[in-house]
Amino acid sequence: MAYAPVRPDRSLPPVRVNLFSDTQTRPSAAMKAAMMQAELGDEQAGDDPTVMALCERMAALTGQQAAMFLPSGTMCNQIAILTHTRPGDEILAHESAHIVASEGGGPGALARAVVLGLHGERGMFDAATLKAALREKRRNAPPQTLVAVEQTSNAGGGSVWPVDLLAEVLTTAHDCGLRIHMDGARLMNAAVAAGVEARAMTAGCDSVWLDFTKGLGAPLGAVLCGSADFIDAAWRWKQRLGGSLRQAGICAAACLYALDHNVDRLAEDHANARRLAAGLAQVPGLRVETPETNLVFFDTAGAGLTADALAEQARSRGVLVSTMGAHRVRACTHIDVDAAGVDLAVQVVAEVTPAGAPFTIC
Amino acid sequence: MAYAPVRPDRSLPPVRVNLFSDTQTRPSAAMKAAMMQAELGDEQAGDDPTVMALCERMAALTGQQAAMFLPSGTMCNQIAILTHTRPGDEILAHESAHIVASEGGGPGALARAVVLGLHGERGMFDAATLKAALREKRRNAPPQTLVAVEQTSNAGGGSVWPVDLLAEVLTTAHDCGLRIHMDGARLMNAAVAAGVEARAMTAGCDSVWLDFTKGLGAPLGAVLCGSADFIDAAWRWKQRLGGSLRQAGICAAACLYALDHNVDRLAEDHANARRLAAGLAQVPGLRVETPETNLVFFDTAGAGLTADALAEQARSRGVLVSTMGAHRVRACTHIDVDAAGVDLAVQVVAEVTPAGAPFTIC
Amino acid sequence: MAYAPVRPDRSLPPVRVNLFSDTQTRPSAAMKAAMMQAELGDEQAGDDPTVMALCERMAALTGQQAAMFLPSGTMCNQIAILTHTRPGDEILAHESAHIVASEGGGPGALARAVVLGLHGERGMFDAATLKAALREKRRNAPPQTLVAVEQTSNAGGGSVWPVDLLAEVLTTAHDCGLRIHMDGARLMNAAVAAGVEARAMTAGCDSVWLDFTKGLGAPLGAVLCGSADFIDAAWRWKQRLGGSLRQAGICAAACLYALDHNVDRLAEDHANARRLAAGLAQVPGLRVETPETNLVFFDTAGAGLTADALAEQARSRGVLVSTMGAHRVRACTHIDVDAAGVDLAVQVVAEVTPAGAPFTIC
Amino acid sequence: MAYAPVRPDRSLPPVRVNLFSDTQTRPSAAMKAAMMQAELGDEQAGDDPTVMALCERMAALTGQQAAMFLPSGTMCNQIAILTHTRPGDEILAHESAHIVASEGGGPGALARAVVLGLHGERGMFDAATLKAALREKRRNAPPQTLVAVEQTSNAGGGSVWPVDLLAEVLTTAHDCGLRIHMDGARLMNAAVAAGVEARAMTAGCDSVWLDFTKGLGAPLGAVLCGSADFIDAAWRWKQRLGGSLRQAGICAAACLYALDHNVDRLAEDHANARRLAAGLAQVPGLRVETPETNLVFFDTAGAGLTADALAEQARSRGVLVSTMGAHRVRACTHIDVDAAGVDLAVQVVAEVTPAGAPFTIC
Repeated sequence: MAYAPVRPDRSLPPVRVNLFSDTQTRPSAAMKAAMMQAELGDEQAGDDPTVMALCERMAALTGQQAAMFLPSGTMCNQIAILTHTRPGDEILAHESAHIVASEGGGPGALARAVVLGLHGERGMFDAATLKAALREKRRNAPPQTLVAVEQTSNAGGGSVWPVDLLAEVLTTAHDCGLRIHMDGARLMNAAVAAGVEARAMTAGCDSVWLDFTKGLGAPLGAVLCGSADFIDAAWRWKQRLGGSLRQAGICAAACLYALDHNVDRLAEDHANARRLAAGLAQVPGLRVETPETNLVFFDTAGAGLTADALAEQARSRGVLVSTMGAHRVRACTHIDVDAAGVDLAVQVVAEVTPAGAPFTIC
Repeated sequence: MAYAPVRPDRSLPPVRVNLFSDTQTRPSAAMKAAMMQAELGDEQAGDDPTVMALCERMAALTGQQAAMFLPSGTMCNQIAILTHTRPGDEILAHESAHIVASEGGGPGALARAVVLGLHGERGMFDAATLKAALREKRRNAPPQTLVAVEQTSNAGGGSVWPVDLLAEVLTTAHDCGLRIHMDGARLMNAAVAAGVEARAMTAGCDSVWLDFTKGLGAPLGAVLCGSADFIDAAWRWKQRLGGSLRQAGICAAACLYALDHNVDRLAEDHANARRLAAGLAQVPGLRVETPETNLVFFDTAGAGLTADALAEQARSRGVLVSTMGAHRVRACTHIDVDAAGVDLAVQVVAEVTPAGAPFTIC
Repeated sequence: MAYAPVRPDRSLPPVRVNLFSDTQTRPSAAMKAAMMQAELGDEQAGDDPTVMALCERMAALTGQQAAMFLPSGTMCNQIAILTHTRPGDEILAHESAHIVASEGGGPGALARAVVLGLHGERGMFDAATLKAALREKRRNAPPQTLVAVEQTSNAGGGSVWPVDLLAEVLTTAHDCGLRIHMDGARLMNAAVAAGVEARAMTAGCDSVWLDFTKGLGAPLGAVLCGSADFIDAAWRWKQRLGGSLRQAGICAAACLYALDHNVDRLAEDHANARRLAAGLAQVPGLRVETPETNLVFFDTAGAGLTADALAEQARSRGVLVSTMGAHRVRACTHIDVDAAGVDLAVQVVAEVTPAGAPFTIC
Repeated sequence: MAYAPVRPDRSLPPVRVNLFSDTQTRPSAAMKAAMMQAELGDEQAGDDPTVMALCERMAALTGQQAAMFLPSGTMCNQIAILTHTRPGDEILAHESAHIVASEGGGPGALARAVVLGLHGERGMFDAATLKAALREKRRNAPPQTLVAVEQTSNAGGGSVWPVDLLAEVLTTAHDCGLRIHMDGARLMNAAVAAGVEARAMTAGCDSVWLDFTKGLGAPLGAVLCGSADFIDAAWRWKQRLGGSLRQAGICAAACLYALDHNVDRLAEDHANARRLAAGLAQVPGLRVETPETNLVFFDTAGAGLTADALAEQARSRGVLVSTMGAHRVRACTHIDVDAAGVDLAVQVVAEVTPAGAPFTIC
């Protein structure tokens, strides 16, 4: 099979509403203007003022000592794992986590770590679950050294780990001698939804990162934060993996712009997600999960069609959604989708969903 | 903490009944005589006739084309994984499997694979569970290439995968393009308990191994079997890991002896295990799992004491058992334990278990 | 020690001539304008037209079937090695190669390969040297699967592998069943210097990449080329390493601009390098290597001072150079340096070099 | 090609003198008797008295704090490297070392380390060579953490690192913050040849091991020694690689026997090697390296035939030798070869070597 991406089918009608992913946002004219004006230098020589400004700002925002700019969120996760663990270590993470399901087995392939999948509703787990999964320290047991949480949980439905839950998991991890890493790809969505400062969710973590290519609308870039020692050690892996860049400030400028202009407005995406969920809930046969942030998941089984079939038919009418499993569809709101787009999407999904679902697939 | 083994406390009374593990059997005089008479050569030069005879015999016994002698069962598992997988691959195994819990994270540390833990009663899973765990082939998903089963399942209670269940899991794995590896550490216990030829359980597997240091009573050695191509490729890893030996025939001779003399008698160990379970079931407060082979597990929670406490007190009276979790005790019958020893063990466990369990720990 | 970059000392006088590295070029206004006008999409969805245009163009330019955009040259090298090799393989490369000395042990850390260092003048080796280093195929020998060449050779003095030498090494590699990878960080410098099309140097290679952040003047980005199968397999590693991007077209646009505007002008950098070498050769005590492209190396031993001392003193007068070893200085010409800058640099180096070198350090 | 060993050709005449390798010795009746009488237990439970006695004795012999029994010398090397290094580290070793040429790329495949090959006569290098190979500590340089020496050097001709040379290399390594590991496969040959206690060569090393399957005549086993902390950490890898054994005392007993009876007699092997060399030097066309221990290397080029041709013809007359390169033959003396055997070997080699070498291959 082909792993290289295949150019989208040009014979399809144009996309009218793109709910496929918030990773597909385009940088605005104002964001691009900020990029053009950025002061640049050689990142690897400590000489790109824009990258350094972004790192300082992100360290402050997350309550950490230091930060590094990286080309992607997956690299943030992998470098954090490489830096925190030694070969043979076991990471504890929710069984649906991005590092488990969507990074090509990277924790094994790169850090030579294994991952123990924890269970829990909506992509989260509590301290008791964590504690129950801890192994006795024996010579032949994998050393457990790292707990990973994903804020918001993508496969969990865009769910938000409450501050209290995070605190209890973090305390348990630290009490048991484990470090805690937060995959904060959509951290700002969580903070905005919960109405707290991001640092309330991240300050105690041993590492945390934020992705700028999702709801924040930048073309590329993510920032990994942690202690000064952690970031120093992480630079070795940034170098080895090829994440050390040159005049990266031109991209970092878009991230700084996003922090200034695109954070508070995530509330609009959340409102649009609720609007979308409410609309879809009216479509007979669909079972819609209550959205907490900008991700709306719904199940098509009751309507007698698969997620892929629904997605394909919606696409043929100009609406893009993604699928996660046989009957689970994901629709994602973001800066390039407004309320009218949401309403159009609901209408299209309703059109392509069989009016009376003749049977229920179990 | 210390990972090197610590010499047992010499101030304790001598061991009267050792139910700690069937790995602690001592070679008999007859077995040692066989070792001393073995014809020897250089294993790596293809010139040790005893090693070669053992490999041929094991290939036939498991219905495979070829085999290799290795110093331990863990090395069999790790070499099989190294040979079957590529970095980043995901192995599907029961969450309690030996490769998950008791090989130091080896699949990550050595093969750079990750393991997805499947659920199921008594350490087994069925084809439906396997199928539900298969991922869509996407660029960012870990490639799933190997299914691993453990026959008997140690943590599952010494349970025996029925031939039909194995066949259905194997067929599903192959239909979906995955290979299947059997950790047959106690394969002969399974075959004897089920009353079938071992090959009925193993012939379709892509690799399988048998440990000779458990119920079969040899001092060291295990044999990994598979196709001629698999074994040929596995030699590279045998060499790299330092599993290529010299006059290994002296140990292989003990394994050949065990195949001749110690297989059928496993039925006695199973009878002793049932006798042990029946005796322990009479002790108030203990919940005993029904043994299928030579492992007897029981829960101490109802007796108001921990597994460690029970084990320590039994040891102080000369009975050795092992623990697996806070309240789970494992007692293992083998060639060096007879019915009288079993009865003595029951008596000692009863003595150290509080007469009336005052409360139940949940 | 600190691995994170340290902000340059702001108390130093401003830099007047930056010969530190061609990686420190800044994008021109015209290049930035091209970036801002680029049509963008999601690279991972095969939907960024600018990235795809760049990849097609690079495939054609190198005579390969396919290409992928990556954030850095180090990632190109590491992904190529990960894709071509299996764990335990041995790569044959010049002992001074970038993958040996300057990628943090990446071939071991990531691909689990070892590297056999070959000898040869100016960072190159011939077919006879390659052949002499080939091992007999034995079980315990590391499998030799990949030859790597660096065009131009950085540590070799910016030297250009002649087309004939490349062809003979390539033929030998292929005849012996090895693949050949070209680190073409400065490939266009080589092509311009040799007066040949790049594809004359690259068409037979199994993989080759070009860096856009060096002489070509783009802020970030490199393109790895190879067969369609190679690129398809490489996408797995691009994903795992976090090199899969989103609206990367904004950076790819700078690369396309560079191909249109900044290739032929590399001849000017080479002329400036010759001018610089000629000037430095007049400074008593300095031994200057004859430049073939844009890198000028000279030895300070005859002048009785170390490379670091010379570099520090030159910096204090506004001229930046780099060092490679105790007495070896590297000065690099590029798009942001003109002939007047070169002359100024010569003057400053002469000023800081002791007039009559009183002794020769051996 | 086939990596599994192939059974030797049974149509050949019987072997009369086996100079192939000292790894092919057979345990004597007395050694086997010692094995039979050994007190056994479970090595992994710290309960095998014979293994523990061997480890204590080896720690004392090498001047180290602790030791572990392992099934092979390759595993000793690999576990030492895994324990001393972190992924991406660079090991400095002679370019002809066993870990470079004959462990299947293990340092990369297992520890993810790279190896920098040093040059020097007869498999050795001095402190100046080591120092010249040290890299500046930079973020993108592979971290250099371990120096490895091989005593005696196999490919170097069975050469003995003098105590003074070892001391100077060791001091340099430690002064520069590197650890030093000794592959002491034939350490006792070195000690006997130099007339010193083994500990004079090993006490300062950070790890050292001795192989018992070579000149010492045991069927299998090697012992790795180091500090208590090193050995404790190494147990993790012993477990992961499958080197943790059970009733290993039965093999360890042979090693203890060898220490008592087979060390001093290595002097006979050395005398036989000198006798062999002297005899071969009389054969026109052969160029014989002066043996320092039990390995005799000679070059066949001057006799107009390849090493393989000579080996094949000698084998056809009952004399086994091995080859290392196109014209380099190795003949190895050991406990199963006496002076008469040596004389017979010389006679056979002379018979199969063309009387007057008609030309010299360059």
